[in-house]
Formats: sequence, structure tokens, C-alpha cells
Amino acid sequence: MLDKVLIANRGEIAVRIARACRELGVRSVGVYSTADRDPVVLRHFDEVVHIGPPAGRRSYQNAAALIEAALHTGADAIHPGYGFLSEDPDFAEICADNGLTFIGPRPDVMSDLGDKSTARRLMREQGMPLLPGSVAALPTAGKAREFADSIGYPVIIKTVAGGGGKGMVVVDSPADIERAYGEARVTALALFGDDRVYLERYLARARHVEVQLLCDHHGNGVHLGTRDCTVQRRHQKLIEEGPAPALAPGTTDEMASTALRAALAVGFTGVGTVEFLVDADERYYFMEINTRIQVEHPVTEMITGIDLVQEQILVAAGYPLRLRQDDITLRGCAIECRVNGEDPARNFVPTAGTVERFIPPGGPFTRVDTHAFAGYRLGPHYDSLLAKVVIWAPDRERALNRMDRALREFDVDGPGVRTTIPFLRQVLANPDFRKAEHSTAIVDQLLDTDG
Amino acid sequence: MLDKVLIANRGEIAVRIARACRELGVRSVGVYSTADRDPVVLRHFDEVVHIGPPAGRRSYQNAAALIEAALHTGADAIHPGYGFLSEDPDFAEICADNGLTFIGPRPDVMSDLGDKSTARRLMREQGMPLLPGSVAALPTAGKAREFADSIGYPVIIKTVAGGGGKGMVVVDSPADIERAYGEARVTALALFGDDRVYLERYLARARHVEVQLLCDHHGNGVHLGTRDCTVQRRHQKLIEEGPAPALAPGTTDEMASTALRAALAVGFTGVGTVEFLVDADERYYFMEINTRIQVEHPVTEMITGIDLVQEQILVAAGYPLRLRQDDITLRGCAIECRVNGEDPARNFVPTAGTVERFIPPGGPFTRVDTHAFAGYRLGPHYDSLLAKVVIWAPDRERALNRMDRALREFDVDGPGVRTTIPFLRQVLANPDFRKAEHSTAIVDQLLDTDG
Repeated sequence: MLDKVLIANRGEIAVRIARACRELGVRSVGVYSTADRDPVVLRHFDEVVHIGPPAGRRSYQNAAALIEAALHTGADAIHPGYGFLSEDPDFAEICADNGLTFIGPRPDVMSDLGDKSTARRLMREQGMPLLPGSVAALPTAGKAREFADSIGYPVIIKTVAGGGGKGMVVVDSPADIERAYGEARVTALALFGDDRVYLERYLARARHVEVQLLCDHHGNGVHLGTRDCTVQRRHQKLIEEGPAPALAPGTTDEMASTALRAALAVGFTGVGTVEFLVDADERYYFMEINTRIQVEHPVTEMITGIDLVQEQILVAAGYPLRLRQDDITLRGCAIECRVNGEDPARNFVPTAGTVERFIPPGGPFTRVDTHAFAGYRLGPHYDSLLAKVVIWAPDRERALNRMDRALREFDVDGPGVRTTIPFLRQVLANPDFRKAEHSTAIVDQLLDTDG
Repeated sequence: MLDKVLIANRGEIAVRIARACRELGVRSVGVYSTADRDPVVLRHFDEVVHIGPPAGRRSYQNAAALIEAALHTGADAIHPGYGFLSEDPDFAEICADNGLTFIGPRPDVMSDLGDKSTARRLMREQGMPLLPGSVAALPTAGKAREFADSIGYPVIIKTVAGGGGKGMVVVDSPADIERAYGEARVTALALFGDDRVYLERYLARARHVEVQLLCDHHGNGVHLGTRDCTVQRRHQKLIEEGPAPALAPGTTDEMASTALRAALAVGFTGVGTVEFLVDADERYYFMEINTRIQVEHPVTEMITGIDLVQEQILVAAGYPLRLRQDDITLRGCAIECRVNGEDPARNFVPTAGTVERFIPPGGPFTRVDTHAFAGYRLGPHYDSLLAKVVIWAPDRERALNRMDRALREFDVDGPGVRTTIPFLRQVLANPDFRKAEHSTAIVDQLLDTDG
């Protein structure tokens, strides 16, 4: 078993991983940048190491500083969380070179699946349905135009290297394609240091449905049901729920088993997610595969009773899966709302300021994952996620009522601090959302109605 | 359906009931004494009414003030919570006389079951096993002596009117019985306004196991598994868990079905608990039946997925049960720890002071029910319960590890403030407790070891 794990991340996910370590009896090493010297957060770790100034590239993405901290503290593994270095195969390699277990898939598998164009090819070979689009990167604006014309508009241009919805551009007509292509490459380079882009048909009114996977190093894997992440603003998820509603059981079963079979075939290990777009006729199309723990993993934990982060650590340590597919039963409905320090009235711009009052919700079937507290400073350095509120109920209607109750009692306040709470409650009350007849367009629709 | 419920209680249980009301779409009226003017608590209610000065008899036990508040706000029901007026059949009658639904059993049933001597007789008639003891109240010290001599020592003297473990005295030898009897009557009168006492054989190394029941007004009832509440100090529960560990499934099944059958036979409705003592040979003996929601109800909620307070409100409103016995499956293991503002090093004396820092635990399968917050004043007026930490895991060992993690991260501090957290962690680490081989003597054993 692993003795000591360095957690190469910050915020709520670092706390989440530290909790898993404590419960497993594994020692944890927390790292922090100068902006994150909060004793309230640092008390979750058994040891802590200061790794650099606030800028991500000089702290949480600074591979050399992280490896040095791990070696210095005698850690035998590194958990990358999500974001930062979690999908960087080079970092996984550097860990291995230093005798450290990287808690994630093998570097070559990360590399293949992290490259969207390779991933599309591999998944197509496994019989996974894809949206019409370019499998390879598009070398020129002319090629992009040619391709888009051949499959029809709207199309969406995506970065080959990126993930998490960043850097995507929707193009509605031939007139815009060449300019959008140029901009997308510039953005891709700035975000990911890699300017390759590809495009595919854009489904304006689709649902975003994903399958949670857990695979060990011995060829065993299980799927843990679906999550719906259709409520997004600018391709960033705001509300997630599981199981995905309003889909025939046959559809979700097929998506889950297809995803698992394909992932095992390409050598995937650890926890990961296969993301699909689903159209109004329940046709589903592979979008991407994420090879790390996801922000919304608690949804799956609440409907399965399984601690995904503990299982992730155990399979990284080399243990065979202790779960078989038959052991996994989905129960009830779980919903997660992301409470971000953003102002919905000003196009979700991140707000800055000190959270003076912070009273999270509690009570029945209510989980809060957060690193914030009364006195926490919402700063400019990192993402604006303040807390995840996750609830469970026997069915979706009761889950919606419970979530509204929980958000209503969540008391976050301070000068300059705005949160997504009022907007989240507006979505929960939306008739289309309540009937699960919404699409990825719902956030824009609600903002339009407001204005 | 009920439109508006007045919650005749305070503290965490008032918040708990308000949450159930919100989730059901029922309006809630909170009441508060002068000592409880906390906006942080009062925001959970849709309306609030000040009902009197701090002393319980002049506020939360002041039937006239509560009825007036209910009528004035147009409430159609009163939820009594636990403690205070929750087991007072006179109050239930007064509610009915004023056209208010009392959320609990019929007054005559409360009266029968609240009188321990009547309850013992009724349960014996239903074939429930009882410990050797006096069914009727003991009129004189001589009778007490005679009775105790006939069944053998140790015996325990209990109040006929009381509940919740208050006012009980253990007597080890004939030399002490007459003095103890006299003291017990004085205490009973002071606590409950009724000096009747009875006695029964005392099991020094027993386990305390109870069965949760839910019955409607149409003759339907279900049992929701067992809880073990063996960890007590001075007959006050500190740690509860469910299902009761280290008992053969045949034993718990039989206890549960016996409890349900007997409760239905005597006309019980609502949520209630049948409490048993279980000896080392798994023989079980009826102790008492509580006709209200209990402090430890979240344990059962976490293993069944059922919101007991919502169900309690629905059956009080006259709805037939929406659950049948087959719908109820017990999953995993849940544990509750009571975090009290008490000093374990000074015999659990309640502490007073202001809670300056209050950061409850969070994360996977971790529930906190509390009315406390940073700035909360732990005062002399009410009980010392600050928060209930409840966790769930697939099995008992993982549940113990998770609870220890949760307690470790619970940060409560302030001048003069002490809590039971360190002591609770000491119990969790105790080898007998971990093996579920402990008895009701465990707290005294641990305190002796310390001293």
C-alpha cells in the first residue's frame, strides 16, 4: 500500500483527496502557494510544503517544485487532482522517473486520450459513434472551411490539447469560419501551448451525458452509471446530476458498456469519464475521455455509495478492483451545484473580495465539499469555485426540492462577493429543467429572459 | 396536506424540522426564547415568533404561548421535536382542542406509552420480553426493598413518567435500596412533576439496541432497522450506529417485527422507537417506547435513504404510508456522534462561552445537523448539544475511519468552550468498540483508565 501521498493541487479537490487519504490511513502532504497560506485548509494535511508564488506555472503546475516536495517529504505517490498537471503525460513520466507513483493512467495512455484527435481515432476504431468532424487536426483555414462546408453548419472548433470545455468556438455560417479558425488557434496556443484545432458538427440543443469508469491495472473495470452535465455556461458545467434523466435505460446501459469496453481496449486505468453528446432522439456521440477525477464525481459517489477517490488511490497502489459490476447498484438521484464566486448578473465575471460570512448548508443527504471559510479571500489567481453542494434523494423531484432548500440556506457574504447561488436556484425552478427537457442552451435562454 | 407547521422546539432539531418543511413545500413557523435570538438559526423558518424568556417552562414548554403563536400565525399543525412537550399527552390534547394537528400519536396512546408502568404492562400483553421488575409503581421504600430482594441485585430504579435516561439510579446492594428509592422519588418529582418510580433488574454489561418504527393512521406500519446506542454516559447517548452490530440477523429481525407488531396493536402512529437491552447471549428485553422523533434518527435515514421527518409530517397529515416493508432496504453502516459543549475531563460538565470558531466537517458521506455557528453562545439554559456528526460507509470499519476523519477536522473553539470531540475519538479508537464487543459500561471504563 502507499504510505504517503503528495496532493499536487489546491482548493476543494485537495481537501477531498486529503480526506480520502485520512480514511485510508495514508499520510498526506499538502502543497500551497503563497496565495493559499490558509491554516483552515492546511489542517487537512498531515504535512504541508510551500511550493512557490501564486501563479499556477510557478506553483501548482511547477513539476520540478512538486517532485522536489515529494522527494523531500518521502512521499511515494502524487495525486494530481483535476486541472493543473492532472492530464499532463510529461508530468506522469517525470513522476515515474523519480520513483513516484502518479495516481492516474500510464503516460502513453494519457497522451493518446488527451490528444483529442488521437482519442477520436481510437474510439472510432472501438466502434464508438462520433459526430461528423475532422479526426485529425486542421492544418489551414482553407481546410477548416472545406471540412465545415462538407458536414454543414453550425460547427464547433475545439482544441486538440485542451479539455474541460476551454477554448471552444461555435461557428454558425461559412462567412465566419476562417476568422474563427484563426482565433481558435491563437487561443489554443495561449491556453495549452499547442495550437492544433479540429472541428465537428455542433449540436445546439443537445444534452451532455457522461459515464464514470473505474479500472485497475489488472484488466478489470466497472462503469458507475451516468451523469448529466447539460447545464453549462460558456462550456463550464454549473449543475450536474446522476443518473442522467429522461433517457431510456437501454440507452444509458449501452453508453456505459460501450464506454467501458473502449476504455479497457485502449489500456485505460484509474478513474475516468467518457463524455457524450446526446441529441433529442437519444443518439449519442463520443466527445472526449477524461483520465482524472472530475469535479462532479460526488454525484456518482452519492448514487453508488462508493468513494471514488479511495478506489482511485487503491488501484494506483496496484490493488485489484474490489468491486465487480454486479456490486454496483444505482440508488435514487444526486445533484451537484457549483457555487462559484462569480456574478451571474455580469456574465459570470469572477468576483474578488473576502468572504466574511460562510455558513454552508447541512442536514439530510446534503454534502458540501469546500475549502472556503469565514475569512477566505476570493482572489484573482485561481478558478472561482467556492463550494460544491451535493444532495441525494430517492427521486429527481425530491432531489430538486432538497437542492433548492440547501442553496437557500447557504449563507455566503462579504464586500464585493457575489455567487452563482441565485442563478442556480433560477435554473432549479425552470420548468424545462424540472421536466428534464432542457438542453445545453438553457443558461443562455435564462440570461436572455433576464435581459 | 398541511399548509403551515409551527415547530415547538429549538436547536438542531428545530432546524432539522424546518428543512423537512421546506423540502415538502410546507411553510414553517419557528419560535424562540429571548436566549435564542440568533438570525443564523431563525433564517431557516418562514416566520418566527418570540414566545418568552429563556426558562423552558416559560417558552418552549409553555403550552399556552405555543398555541397562541400557532393560532396567531395561522399554522395548522405543531411539531414538538424531541424533549420539551414532545411526550406530553396534555399538550397533544390542547392542540386538538384548538383545531391544531399535533405531529405525534393520539394523546391516549402517548399517555399509555409514556407511563412506563402502563407501557410495560401493555408490551407484556403483546408477548414482549421484559426484564424481571415491578410493572406497577412502587408505593413505599419497603416495597422497593422487598421487590429488589426478590429479583436480585443490581437493580435500577426508573421514573414512571420520565424518559431519555433521566432520573435513573442503579442500586448494587440491599443496604442502599431504601435511601436510593427516596432520592429517586425526589428527583422524579423535580424532573417530571410525578414522583412514581419502579425498578427492574439491572444489566451491567448490556447493549442498548432500538428499533425505528413508522406507522400511519390507517393501520399500516414499517420498521426501519435497528440502532445501537450502547455508548452512554450517565444514561445519555454519545454515539449511535445502525444497523446494530454483532447481532445475528435472526435476532434483529425478530426484535424489529416484535416491536412493530406490538406498537400497531396498541394504536401507535407516527415515528417512534422501541428500546431494548440486549445481553451477551443476545436475549433482548423491552425497556421503553418513545413516541417522537429521536436525536439519533439520522442514522436510520442514512442506512435507509428515507427522510423520517418528512414521512412523520405526511402521516400526521393523514396520508397513508407510501412505503411498504419490502421497499425498505438497509445499506451499509451509519454512525452518529453527539458533539456536546461539555468537558469530558471534568465529568462532562456543560461548558459556557462563545464559540468563536466553528468549522464543521464536510465531504463524502458526512452529514452535520447543527444550529451552532461562529458566534454562537453556549449558555446555561438548554442542553449542551452543539452538533450531530453523522457519517455513512459501506461497512462498519470504514465507517469508523470516516467518523474519526470527520471529528478530527471539526474545528470548534472559543474561550471556555470544551467539547466531547476528543472523548468521542477515544471511544472510536477503543479496541472493544472497534470489535463491537463493548457494553454500556464503556464510558466509565475509559474514564477510569484516564484517571
